[in-house]
Amino acid sequence: MKPAETTPESGAETTAAGQAMTPEAFRRFGHQVIDYLADYHAGVASRPVMSRSSPGSIRAQLPDQPPHQPEDFAAVLGDLEGIVMPGLTHWQHPQFYGYFPGNADLSSVLGDLLSSGLGVLGLAWQSSPALSELEEVVTDWLRQMLGLSDQWSGVIQDTASTSTLVALLCARERTTNYGGVADGLSAEVSPLVIYTSEYSHSSVAKAAMLAGFGAGNVRVIETDSAFALRVDHLEAAIQADLAAGRQPCAVVASVGTTTTTALDPVQKISDITGQYGLWLHVDAAMAGSAMILPECRWMWEGIEKADSLVVNAHKWLGAVFDTSLYYVRDQQHLIRVMSTNPSYLQSAADNQVKNLRDWGIPLGRRFRALKLWALIRTQGREGLQARLRRDLDHAQWLAQQVEAAPGWKVLAPVTLQTVCVRYEPAGLTPEALDAFTKDWCQQINDSGLAYLTPATLEGRWMVRISIGALTTQRAHVQMLWETMRQRAEAAVSDHLG
Amino acid sequence: MKPAETTPESGAETTAAGQAMTPEAFRRFGHQVIDYLADYHAGVASRPVMSRSSPGSIRAQLPDQPPHQPEDFAAVLGDLEGIVMPGLTHWQHPQFYGYFPGNADLSSVLGDLLSSGLGVLGLAWQSSPALSELEEVVTDWLRQMLGLSDQWSGVIQDTASTSTLVALLCARERTTNYGGVADGLSAEVSPLVIYTSEYSHSSVAKAAMLAGFGAGNVRVIETDSAFALRVDHLEAAIQADLAAGRQPCAVVASVGTTTTTALDPVQKISDITGQYGLWLHVDAAMAGSAMILPECRWMWEGIEKADSLVVNAHKWLGAVFDTSLYYVRDQQHLIRVMSTNPSYLQSAADNQVKNLRDWGIPLGRRFRALKLWALIRTQGREGLQARLRRDLDHAQWLAQQVEAAPGWKVLAPVTLQTVCVRYEPAGLTPEALDAFTKDWCQQINDSGLAYLTPATLEGRWMVRISIGALTTQRAHVQMLWETMRQRAEAAVSDHLG
Repeated sequence: MKPAETTPESGAETTAAGQAMTPEAFRRFGHQVIDYLADYHAGVASRPVMSRSSPGSIRAQLPDQPPHQPEDFAAVLGDLEGIVMPGLTHWQHPQFYGYFPGNADLSSVLGDLLSSGLGVLGLAWQSSPALSELEEVVTDWLRQMLGLSDQWSGVIQDTASTSTLVALLCARERTTNYGGVADGLSAEVSPLVIYTSEYSHSSVAKAAMLAGFGAGNVRVIETDSAFALRVDHLEAAIQADLAAGRQPCAVVASVGTTTTTALDPVQKISDITGQYGLWLHVDAAMAGSAMILPECRWMWEGIEKADSLVVNAHKWLGAVFDTSLYYVRDQQHLIRVMSTNPSYLQSAADNQVKNLRDWGIPLGRRFRALKLWALIRTQGREGLQARLRRDLDHAQWLAQQVEAAPGWKVLAPVTLQTVCVRYEPAGLTPEALDAFTKDWCQQINDSGLAYLTPATLEGRWMVRISIGALTTQRAHVQMLWETMRQRAEAAVSDHLG
Repeated sequence: MKPAETTPESGAETTAAGQAMTPEAFRRFGHQVIDYLADYHAGVASRPVMSRSSPGSIRAQLPDQPPHQPEDFAAVLGDLEGIVMPGLTHWQHPQFYGYFPGNADLSSVLGDLLSSGLGVLGLAWQSSPALSELEEVVTDWLRQMLGLSDQWSGVIQDTASTSTLVALLCARERTTNYGGVADGLSAEVSPLVIYTSEYSHSSVAKAAMLAGFGAGNVRVIETDSAFALRVDHLEAAIQADLAAGRQPCAVVASVGTTTTTALDPVQKISDITGQYGLWLHVDAAMAGSAMILPECRWMWEGIEKADSLVVNAHKWLGAVFDTSLYYVRDQQHLIRVMSTNPSYLQSAADNQVKNLRDWGIPLGRRFRALKLWALIRTQGREGLQARLRRDLDHAQWLAQQVEAAPGWKVLAPVTLQTVCVRYEPAGLTPEALDAFTKDWCQQINDSGLAYLTPATLEGRWMVRISIGALTTQRAHVQMLWETMRQRAEAAVSDHLG
């Protein structure tokens, strides 16, 4: 096929050498993709939640070499349906209770489509002023919705893993008076120590490893009966490190742990970080969304004394991944840790604007603010509040059913939308109970009726039900509970002697 | 408005509490967004390339508080057109020559829409098997297209900044025998040193700062007349550090520097890294795309001796941002540096599959493979090759015009698609020439006719023309050259005594 001739005045025909997709082809296929996705969401409830693919089975259906010649986009869509879709676990399914609600409200999907479709990049403010300024506006909107004071400034990172890494880098540099970025950590005479609870997210330990603290300098602090960090143990650990000549640096408190949504006592922890001069980072990646509800804000009382915090708008709140909000109190400190300023990025506006490249690790950034903007505007503060309250009610309802059923236990306080349960029939050893728990959970996942993730609590396996998919109604939770009872109670006999 | 009642069998009505956008509303507005974007691309050539917004002007037009009540998505689209669009610098414009080509081929935009719209997340393989396996397939496709051996394994990161940070973390851990992640860098007795050229990207120094090496342990190696790293200086610097009791750790070589697309001599550098046992990371973020052309592969001769490399498919190649490909030779080493394995992410398949969470910093990941898959399939290897060759021709043509014009100079070898120029009329002091150069470049940017970024080379300002937007045809480059001559030559009188 001969490349089309174009004149410089015409942007409509963008083919010529290389056959880039034309606006007209985009229009035609774009409408197909929109219809495909609308149909997908309308029908997702009828699909098995968890993919039934075996490892390597999708790869085996795909060519192992790239095509030489262009293919029609219709072929891509065909393979999407035939090969990719059976390989998906459906996070937007009303019976998805795994991991955390990874909600992709369709308004935010359209916001994200605008980001991709406009194809503008943030490097410096000048490279697309609206990209920077809208991010400043929507992160401030969310700050207000969360009830945070105007002492906080926000930026969108990809994930909480990255936000927490940035927080530990900021902590490292405050403690070393910018010695890490200047001379390197090997110039430090004493190791820097991080404190976090045994139920904090794996990203905390990972961040400490990557930022050069070392896993051996992460103190894993014991928790109380509600799986919240024990402040007495925290202080004892700090004192022990000081006595040994080590340098306490930061505490990472979890508001809503991954396993049980336990709440570390931020207020009491902040007293200690204040007293010892430590950085306080609050990981509210999942539970932070609940702070748009005034009745939940007691859960992070003391937050104004923290130095940094992360709330993932791409979880329960509903902005499509990746939309992790990182807030700091001392933005000049963050910029000093993160900034480089090469000539090819300088512009006359630099002193008047927020250059978001200095707020995180990547230089370039997508126009991520659009998806959060679309979500907040189309849902409104009250719409988002109503949905989160619905999910809190579902969790309370489920917890009541579990507690009332013989042999069933709720294992942790149901502070939010996560319910941790175990069915403990008589006659099983602890090891047999572990095997039984994983078995019935796996049976449900294999059935396609619902998706749950098992996890360990106090060294024993249990089942987490993380409620809060956009489409999950009370009837879905009722159906889940019936399924759990049936499957678990029917599976007992396989595990008894 | 009362929430709609839904039954659990129906996924179509997803409203109820919180009014999540329904599939039907998504269909209606989605078609509007597709048409909006198709029209945008068809007409982008008629817009001024650079935004004329003044700092703060977009923010000033937006409400400083979030809405309480839901708004219609049509209101979002209205403000997009009225407020956001004038604040954009148009990267997809045929007269965009700034920074680098940040191409968003519309096929990849549709691939990315599928990613957002399906709303699936990668955490573990099981959380969406196709997401992991398609990423494995397309990164391998690109590996083959780049002419790399099957000793390399790839993963998609967000940006080269992150890829280079991961590379330096891997280097750090190889040199310390995993001491950094285990005991922390302060346990190291001698500082670890990084070597890179004076024209390497700012992300190299940033990565060294964040990874705990410290800016003071980055040796900035001088370059030759082609702005390529001088290997004799590199070796001298390594020997000086060894003599001083420091620990050489890694070299970051640039294949295509940001300023001039200069080519560090990878083969010769690899002899040295081999001899001294250093990690060799190759930053081919921009220029790596050219390696799909066999005639360009001499530019990174020796690449098979590197330990890691980064190629950004979201630059010249055309996959919409963010699609940075990071390749390593020793994947087990990468996994050991990056891995944590909490119970809530374990599954039975863990030993049979690639868990991409252990290949980078974030735990969660988008289905980014879809956009690269859509690009490669709809363009084909040959289509992509044809487009890149077109752009190489444009750059050679422009360089010839510049060299033939009195007073105009091409300042660096035009190895790829970037042309570095200065107009040097007689009678200007070096300082006056700097001011003049920035002035005429700014005049062009302000005119909206084209967008160029100035930068410094050997301490003096010059103008970079980075050719390669998807829509840029020869006639556009001709028009650019006419504009440059007119504006620069007319501006001279303002700068002469």
